[in-house]
Amino acid sequence: MKNLIIDIGNTRIKTALFEDEQIVLEKAFESLEEFILEIETLDFEHCIISSVKFSEADLKMKLDFEFLYLTRQSAIPITNKYGTPDTLGVDRKAAAVGARSIFGEGNLLSIDLGSCITYDFLNEKNEFLGGAISPGLKMRFLAMHQMTARLPLTELKQNEKINIIGDRTESGLQSGVYHGILFEIEGFIAAYQQQHQDLKVIICGGDSKFFETLTKDHIFVIPNLVLYGLNRILTYNVNKK
Amino acid sequence: MKNLIIDIGNTRIKTALFEDEQIVLEKAFESLEEFILEIETLDFEHCIISSVKFSEADLKMKLDFEFLYLTRQSAIPITNKYGTPDTLGVDRKAAAVGARSIFGEGNLLSIDLGSCITYDFLNEKNEFLGGAISPGLKMRFLAMHQMTARLPLTELKQNEKINIIGDRTESGLQSGVYHGILFEIEGFIAAYQQQHQDLKVIICGGDSKFFETLTKDHIFVIPNLVLYGLNRILTYNVNKK
Repeated sequence: MKNLIIDIGNTRIKTALFEDEQIVLEKAFESLEEFILEIETLDFEHCIISSVKFSEADLKMKLDFEFLYLTRQSAIPITNKYGTPDTLGVDRKAAAVGARSIFGEGNLLSIDLGSCITYDFLNEKNEFLGGAISPGLKMRFLAMHQMTARLPLTELKQNEKINIIGDRTESGLQSGVYHGILFEIEGFIAAYQQQHQDLKVIICGGDSKFFETLTKDHIFVIPNLVLYGLNRILTYNVNKK
Repeated sequence: MKNLIIDIGNTRIKTALFEDEQIVLEKAFESLEEFILEIETLDFEHCIISSVKFSEADLKMKLDFEFLYLTRQSAIPITNKYGTPDTLGVDRKAAAVGARSIFGEGNLLSIDLGSCITYDFLNEKNEFLGGAISPGLKMRFLAMHQMTARLPLTELKQNEKINIIGDRTESGLQSGVYHGILFEIEGFIAAYQQQHQDLKVIICGGDSKFFETLTKDHIFVIPNLVLYGLNRILTYNVNKK
């Protein structure tokens, strides 16, 4: 089965072509127009679109091929045991399904480092139980700048060593955001591991590149996990028909 | 020596009367007017004011007594080894001095849970070396609400048990903020303890009430630490004259 996966975020459009659960092509676009130019050359059988930006009707007008539009009501191959199932964001579902598509069994924690950081737990019975939401990396920098009178806006650079002790404002902010997220992730993993010794953890999302040092036994950094989840959801819906 | 300490924040005015390094009276006010009515009945020798809201000139017009107005240039009884010493906020200095006034010697980490969370390290030579800054508890809730399309504004209630797994949006946000800060604080303390086995830690600030469970050997929760620091700075400046 050849699946085209399209994940439309606020700033970028991530696409991947899957053949039998493997990514054979992956590309990001800045705009829908740029993507439409390229799509004509692609050969695929099925397509799924997840979008925070465009409605299904919007996309139907712009695209001349069939696609499955992911909504909170779409069928997914996990049992949603969330207390308020209709409020669970499609990105969190896709991350959990992606973790399951990579690890066939066991207790799984997926950690998505996007605008917010979401922690999503899928138990060995394939039940989604919930998790946690905290501010993402860029949001932490932005909030401290916008919500105080004096703190400047700063950011992290990849592969730059961050000291625990920042000896000026910028390095203090960088230590607080970087180590804050690092210790938060380590703490959540340890708390889940206390309950589930076989736990496997997948860290994904755009800012996961800053936390590759976390990779070790049972902890994997897979930035594009959501694309794997969307592919599995598409295959599940095609096979259901 | 009878010292009146006045700490004017964005929302409240915290005051304390110290006699020989001990607080004999502590009270918070909603406005400067409310405070001025009460001040006339107070008996004190010296006064220090730290204010993010009013300039020294403003206060001189409103108050009919002498006071030391704390600025970034005020003399303090610790050595400022910060890389950019003039940019160090007076609240961070006051927390570090407060930690020293409570523990006469040793390596000290003060953690102030206010609008932002500040980590400030004072070594055994009484040198302030810096630390870290991360978003405070209310700022995390507010940022996730204001900077995303769908997340509601929520908060913590004291003494409410927060589960690791939130099974709906509100409890997910509460777990992410509460455990995020808890694990961040524990991680920073562990990182400093690796370097300094004798480390003493003081957690202070308005939101420290949510983290009293952290109290154990070498970790103390003292919400009004900054008042102790201001008292010590005042005594230091009076004695210098």
